[in-house]
Amino acid sequence: MASSASLLSLALCSLLLFQVCSAQFETGRVWGSSRSQTAIRHTIEQRGLLLPAYSNAPKLIYVDQGRGYHSAAIPGCPETYQSEQESESRDPRQGSRDQHQKIRKIRQGDIIAIPAGVADWFYNDGQSPLVLVQIMDTSNFANQLDQNFRKFFLAGNPQREIQGQRGQPSRHLYRGSEKGRGGGGGQEQRSGNIFQAFDEQFLAEAFNIDTDLARRIKNENDNRGIIVRVEEQLEFLSPEFSEEERRQSSQGGGRTGRWSANGIEETFCTAKLRHNINDPSRADIFNPRAGRLTTVNSFNLPILRYIQLSAQKGFLYRNAIMTPHWNMNAHSINYITRGSGQIQIVNENGESVFDGQVQEGQIITAPQNFAVIKRAGSDGLEWISFKTNDNAKINQIAGRASTIRAIPQDVLANAFAISREEAQRIKFNRREIGIFSPETRSRGRRD
Amino acid sequence: MASSASLLSLALCSLLLFQVCSAQFETGRVWGSSRSQTAIRHTIEQRGLLLPAYSNAPKLIYVDQGRGYHSAAIPGCPETYQSEQESESRDPRQGSRDQHQKIRKIRQGDIIAIPAGVADWFYNDGQSPLVLVQIMDTSNFANQLDQNFRKFFLAGNPQREIQGQRGQPSRHLYRGSEKGRGGGGGQEQRSGNIFQAFDEQFLAEAFNIDTDLARRIKNENDNRGIIVRVEEQLEFLSPEFSEEERRQSSQGGGRTGRWSANGIEETFCTAKLRHNINDPSRADIFNPRAGRLTTVNSFNLPILRYIQLSAQKGFLYRNAIMTPHWNMNAHSINYITRGSGQIQIVNENGESVFDGQVQEGQIITAPQNFAVIKRAGSDGLEWISFKTNDNAKINQIAGRASTIRAIPQDVLANAFAISREEAQRIKFNRREIGIFSPETRSRGRRD
Amino acid sequence: MASSASLLSLALCSLLLFQVCSAQFETGRVWGSSRSQTAIRHTIEQRGLLLPAYSNAPKLIYVDQGRGYHSAAIPGCPETYQSEQESESRDPRQGSRDQHQKIRKIRQGDIIAIPAGVADWFYNDGQSPLVLVQIMDTSNFANQLDQNFRKFFLAGNPQREIQGQRGQPSRHLYRGSEKGRGGGGGQEQRSGNIFQAFDEQFLAEAFNIDTDLARRIKNENDNRGIIVRVEEQLEFLSPEFSEEERRQSSQGGGRTGRWSANGIEETFCTAKLRHNINDPSRADIFNPRAGRLTTVNSFNLPILRYIQLSAQKGFLYRNAIMTPHWNMNAHSINYITRGSGQIQIVNENGESVFDGQVQEGQIITAPQNFAVIKRAGSDGLEWISFKTNDNAKINQIAGRASTIRAIPQDVLANAFAISREEAQRIKFNRREIGIFSPETRSRGRRD
Repeated sequence: MASSASLLSLALCSLLLFQVCSAQFETGRVWGSSRSQTAIRHTIEQRGLLLPAYSNAPKLIYVDQGRGYHSAAIPGCPETYQSEQESESRDPRQGSRDQHQKIRKIRQGDIIAIPAGVADWFYNDGQSPLVLVQIMDTSNFANQLDQNFRKFFLAGNPQREIQGQRGQPSRHLYRGSEKGRGGGGGQEQRSGNIFQAFDEQFLAEAFNIDTDLARRIKNENDNRGIIVRVEEQLEFLSPEFSEEERRQSSQGGGRTGRWSANGIEETFCTAKLRHNINDPSRADIFNPRAGRLTTVNSFNLPILRYIQLSAQKGFLYRNAIMTPHWNMNAHSINYITRGSGQIQIVNENGESVFDGQVQEGQIITAPQNFAVIKRAGSDGLEWISFKTNDNAKINQIAGRASTIRAIPQDVLANAFAISREEAQRIKFNRREIGIFSPETRSRGRRD
Repeated sequence: MASSASLLSLALCSLLLFQVCSAQFETGRVWGSSRSQTAIRHTIEQRGLLLPAYSNAPKLIYVDQGRGYHSAAIPGCPETYQSEQESESRDPRQGSRDQHQKIRKIRQGDIIAIPAGVADWFYNDGQSPLVLVQIMDTSNFANQLDQNFRKFFLAGNPQREIQGQRGQPSRHLYRGSEKGRGGGGGQEQRSGNIFQAFDEQFLAEAFNIDTDLARRIKNENDNRGIIVRVEEQLEFLSPEFSEEERRQSSQGGGRTGRWSANGIEETFCTAKLRHNINDPSRADIFNPRAGRLTTVNSFNLPILRYIQLSAQKGFLYRNAIMTPHWNMNAHSINYITRGSGQIQIVNENGESVFDGQVQEGQIITAPQNFAVIKRAGSDGLEWISFKTNDNAKINQIAGRASTIRAIPQDVLANAFAISREEAQRIKFNRREIGIFSPETRSRGRRD
Repeated sequence: MASSASLLSLALCSLLLFQVCSAQFETGRVWGSSRSQTAIRHTIEQRGLLLPAYSNAPKLIYVDQGRGYHSAAIPGCPETYQSEQESESRDPRQGSRDQHQKIRKIRQGDIIAIPAGVADWFYNDGQSPLVLVQIMDTSNFANQLDQNFRKFFLAGNPQREIQGQRGQPSRHLYRGSEKGRGGGGGQEQRSGNIFQAFDEQFLAEAFNIDTDLARRIKNENDNRGIIVRVEEQLEFLSPEFSEEERRQSSQGGGRTGRWSANGIEETFCTAKLRHNINDPSRADIFNPRAGRLTTVNSFNLPILRYIQLSAQKGFLYRNAIMTPHWNMNAHSINYITRGSGQIQIVNENGESVFDGQVQEGQIITAPQNFAVIKRAGSDGLEWISFKTNDNAKINQIAGRASTIRAIPQDVLANAFAISREEAQRIKFNRREIGIFSPETRSRGRRD
């Protein structure tokens, strides 16, 4: 396993591998790439609220641990969650009556997609930490600003610290966890929510409130960070199955009528933003001796067509191998969620740009077209790949469905200067697709 | 009101605000943006002809004052305006017979869209100046050259002056008005129409004309500038209602049959290029106590889908407020057409990047995602916003249909560290959408 | 004709014109452009195999001379060429039985389109050299890496040499021809196929082969270059007409039934990648006294919509002229395939950026929007234009269907400060479209 010294030097020389610490994020330009993505991990403790904010990049969020709630405020869409009394009194400003946009329950394994410029927030109502890994693609067409990741908070006081040197992509470190973290060597920079620099009188008029309240929403002396602890359990509207639904559901088939497709195209306001990628029954490639691969792309989560990102969950059993491959039309930013393994990445000159052990909590980026090989360690290897294309494709090099199989064996024999029989072995010895078992019967037989 | 000294320093430090002088244009990279747009204002006096030219960027033109004619030469499209005799004699080179592409009457409030690489010209046949404000988006996908705005004249002799320093976006100053202007501190640069550097013999052969005429269309010693005065009234074909049409029209309904939709999709050759944005009956948001907002986007002017720009006309009455908002998917380049007001713009660190008075003739750019607030002065405030997306959206922060309303009040209470009752006031006190009246009854009642 | 000294200085100062030597390629940023394209010419001798490789840019290939075979390995598509016995024995690893993807016969005049990240190879089975001219568009949206052209070889040992200085676009020189070439002044750089840096044990496991064979496919001591000579004639599956088909075909109409459109949309796996652009019967513009122009764009080769490139073949007879024009929405990279001529290119300031003789084997780029004029020499001029838009359009300046014709003659008269009669001559004297005969009857009559 790599020591943290070697990890550091790797990060400095290639920007390929990052250790993602608690509630810290690192931003980097992919090696040899004109594009940049930013990854961040948030640990939200029990009753923690990650403050509403939006950014200049679309994002994909993977729920690495826990359960909670998420809501995105889609502009121009109505507040469709309404307390029942509201329609009668027509005055929503009484008691606990409220109305707001849709709130989604989230759980481990969910992928959540958020377009650029849309504000969202998270809340942990569970008993264990809610851990989120996010990737933000500042290179996306949706971002017309520069390649710096910019997060705009609607509330609170982020107190951002800036580390990084001139000419390099800067790294922002938020005080994002309730545990806080040491200041490191970074400079403290005054920073606040978007209301902070507005004139109080303006704000008061805009919201039709008094100037005292207008001043207080600037949260200028707030030291709670970007994740705040909610004292009492947070209250909002959240639909539950009615008694009748539960009865029908237990009888089976009861929900069919309610959820059948209606032929009306999904609108932006009701777009699905979430898809669970951990469910084994959704695996796209499954090999009982090797593992499974599950993909979320614009075919099963259509909003991804709009934000041009997708994700793949990989699960390799002990010592299993993922086929050597290259990412045809995307970068692949891999976050190791469990276990350990070895990864090798090779560039167009046949030079190794990464060759090392990876383990839980690390991020390693495979640039577009670079050749990659992954092998699980003795505990297996589990990762989530964020990909910078809504329909990312890989080009497999070995196994069935590989590029090598597409080429006539006589071409391979001449290209590699080997015999036809050897070319045949290269084409046909590995019969699995995508993920390979560590030791196969045929191998012993053949070598 | 800002002094010109402060305006200058603003322009230098932020490139956000420009004073647009007569027939001068400024080009700037938006603060923190990888994109650049160029704005120019032309004042075409009576019988002035703005010479045919094309550029490396699509453009939106707003007719700020006056009336006149505009024509774009769409490549590959036929000359559909033909003198009647032409079809009989089959020789168009006789007398005043002519044929050319469509010519459009334009008037105050029109938005005109022109794709990159398409030549167009303007002519003022009216009694008062024709004033045009144009925005050119060199960052558009259609431009494969660098970010410099490049204008190619088909005729005349632009005699461009170049100002600007190395490493900065250059500013081109045309002698565009008939009044001319002093040379400023800029260097004179030899510059001419696209024929100037071609070999005369080549040109003569290409047009099948004599070399003397070929030399003369280079306009090498022409000192008229890019807007030339036409001695006699310009002649071209322009359709008028026939006697019969006028009679039918006055009876009402006469034109229905002729203009009904025919189910045949618009082609590039007949694409609508113009839409009037001043007509109050077309307002998208109207508040009799606050003002109105009117949008031209790819839904009502489909060519905008192709050039990926749109526009919004804003009209705030005395002391009215436009909701605090951010531009979700576009930059917004605002040209103040009338009145004055105050604008504040805030970045992702909660820092003010602009806070000042604006008035007629100024340009102020709100970068994507930056929070903006606008308030009209005592004379009201009127502006045209050019947006770098064919379906630009804003995210309102206050009022009905705002992001704040989409968030549960308990989340707001915890996020701002205020009481639930205060959160309710922030959500529900301002019930208007988009543009707010200066003093509301409810405000007096509530504070 | 320009001396090679002047050619060199041109290449240095404008990057517009390149001499393309045998199996050498040059990469350049188009003058004043943010985009870069790379051109390469390969000469594949008899029984030469250009090794399987993929790159970070889509490419268009023009077959300049000869005949041969080409195959692209489309990821995820089945091996549809299968030896007949294979289905019976179900074991493809016997004797000469094989299966692979589609192989295409290619011949002089073919345009071949390959998406980024797709591996392909060429083989010359003919009696004369197979000469390919390729353009790779690293500025394409499909490339998320930087603007360097990167070629990843699946086999062999490229032994790349790097020339070029820091801060300049680098030039890669491959030892691509069987004749080899001197090292020039460039530095030798270790370089190999994508397997070279992978761990042998990993490769052995991935392919399920022994480590000795895994080591040998790295081709570390291979000195054959990127085009290898095949000792015996290469064997692969290639469909021929059956006896019955030949009989039917000679009777006429026999193939109609088999090749009729079936209403099922082309899929990626069966996409047409090839179109012959030399066939005179496919000319889009033909003038028996001037020459012809033939276009391949996304309308007749739909894969081009995906890779956003197109091509045009030009053929000017002795002393004929191509209309002065500008490329509206693309750069045009012109490779002179035969003959010689004169080209002038003018920028937005009316300045000449190129004015010189061109001849067979040279490349000259006309940047988007720059005005261009071409005239054939005494032997005629033949060229292939690669264009950076799948539906590239030109804007003709002279002749029928020109921008000048779209403008009313009175506007031209005032713009050029000439008489109406002279404006008429400019509009109507040249009645041909696109390509003009060198001397016209009307000219003598008129001047």
